[in-house]
Amino acid sequence: MTRLEHTRPATATGIGRREFGRHLAALAALGPLTLVDHQPAAAQEPQTHDQGMQRLVDALSDDAAGKARIHPATPRQIAMVIYPGMFPLDLVGPHSVLSGLMNTRVHIVAKSKAPVAAGGLTFVPTATFDEVGGPLDVLFVPGGGEGTVAMMRDPALLGFLRRHGATAKYVTSVCTGSLVLGAAGLLTGYRATTHWVTHPVLAKLGATPVNARVVEDRNRITAAGVSAGIDFGLTLAARMTTEKYAKALQLNIEYDPAPPYQAGSPKGAGERITAVMREMYAPIVRAAEAAAG
Amino acid sequence: MTRLEHTRPATATGIGRREFGRHLAALAALGPLTLVDHQPAAAQEPQTHDQGMQRLVDALSDDAAGKARIHPATPRQIAMVIYPGMFPLDLVGPHSVLSGLMNTRVHIVAKSKAPVAAGGLTFVPTATFDEVGGPLDVLFVPGGGEGTVAMMRDPALLGFLRRHGATAKYVTSVCTGSLVLGAAGLLTGYRATTHWVTHPVLAKLGATPVNARVVEDRNRITAAGVSAGIDFGLTLAARMTTEKYAKALQLNIEYDPAPPYQAGSPKGAGERITAVMREMYAPIVRAAEAAAG
Repeated sequence: MTRLEHTRPATATGIGRREFGRHLAALAALGPLTLVDHQPAAAQEPQTHDQGMQRLVDALSDDAAGKARIHPATPRQIAMVIYPGMFPLDLVGPHSVLSGLMNTRVHIVAKSKAPVAAGGLTFVPTATFDEVGGPLDVLFVPGGGEGTVAMMRDPALLGFLRRHGATAKYVTSVCTGSLVLGAAGLLTGYRATTHWVTHPVLAKLGATPVNARVVEDRNRITAAGVSAGIDFGLTLAARMTTEKYAKALQLNIEYDPAPPYQAGSPKGAGERITAVMREMYAPIVRAAEAAAG
Repeated sequence: MTRLEHTRPATATGIGRREFGRHLAALAALGPLTLVDHQPAAAQEPQTHDQGMQRLVDALSDDAAGKARIHPATPRQIAMVIYPGMFPLDLVGPHSVLSGLMNTRVHIVAKSKAPVAAGGLTFVPTATFDEVGGPLDVLFVPGGGEGTVAMMRDPALLGFLRRHGATAKYVTSVCTGSLVLGAAGLLTGYRATTHWVTHPVLAKLGATPVNARVVEDRNRITAAGVSAGIDFGLTLAARMTTEKYAKALQLNIEYDPAPPYQAGSPKGAGERITAVMREMYAPIVRAAEAAAG
């Protein structure tokens, strides 16, 4: 499963670069700390590449086990599902962290290869359900509104989730994505969370609702609404690599939050604003409860 | 400039819905608080639509001026630029907030309509530079790595930015996007910020660097790296509407951050991790300095 080619700009620097080899070329083209096994660029200074990679791994680990977790011998496989109507930030928050894992393939998976319209943006999948082999390291489902409720009843997606949910190292979600995991039977008996407005639906899906931003129960990691995906991504990255590596990923995205208000929870937002939002989402919550059966 | 059609799932609820009219249908299909002027859905309960919209506007404003800012008579126009190699979260963080503004068109603008590969994801633009009329309410540029340095020298993008930068109500950026604004001459004499690792480049672009997460100087609003885009989005939303409306948007994305570590800044991450990241980004920083001229 190859990444899309990135056109190297004609103005790319001729300045001498201390090279981390093909990984830094991939990183620069792809964005932050995206040290994945890419098609090798022209083999430049292979010795320096190995040295550079080794320096990074050494700096962010304390022992051999940590090094092996940062740079696993076999590529990690992460499948991030997308579907019409998802909340883009549910996907992109975690992706901004997980795309920085070394020797890791991140697949953007949908029912077909057709572009997926979601929340005013359009994403292009990299793989269909059928094309993703297992076992996965991470199975991930983002949330959304009405589109997510539809996925609670979608046979193709539920089948994909059941198949991989049985063998994935981690089964994960952000926001109402947990309702889809629940609809696939993957949260029965597990503690879990979801977007604050759909919390009442979890129990109907056999899950034990927990009012926390990121909930870990055995290999299920679920997160609260939308922006909680960043906290989730860093938590998962630490589980899969080392605390230092997760900290480097946090620094990479400069995640030192300073919200201008404290209205990110019903308690902080206060009764009036919470009531407005609850009223607006009532039809979706009812629909989710109906889909939960 | 119309939004892409969103396929209504066949399983869309038949449950009775208290309707906010076409806006709630658009919202449910598009995601959070996306109350934009969409093609009207089948006209359902127009009286209830008006009543529902009015309740929302009333609840989140204190006076007539606030109502007019929440639901402007003329559609707001927001142009969010995308380009190869941008950091997806730079775009999607702010977009998750700004897409919730009422009567607002958010254009995803690129040099052409071809899908744009960025940080392991692929986005489809909605408009090209030539198709965006002014004056804009918001001109926005996301950041990235090497791809962003290339944009500092891209005549088409710089021309687009200069053109709209002269007339936009707000000229904005997240992360290294400010370096592109600077390259277009739009930050000369303005206080501004950027991703922590490229801060030294700002002065070369005639800007006055400020070490803060969101910097507002007259109509320029710039933000620090990547995840700072969410704080930026909420700040800008409050400027354009009301504090209560911005709080509702914050609650919508449940932005009540709880990072597992405090490593989101060089100070918090500590010397060793910061040095690793600085070393990794050194070639990009040098390239940006060279492009700053």
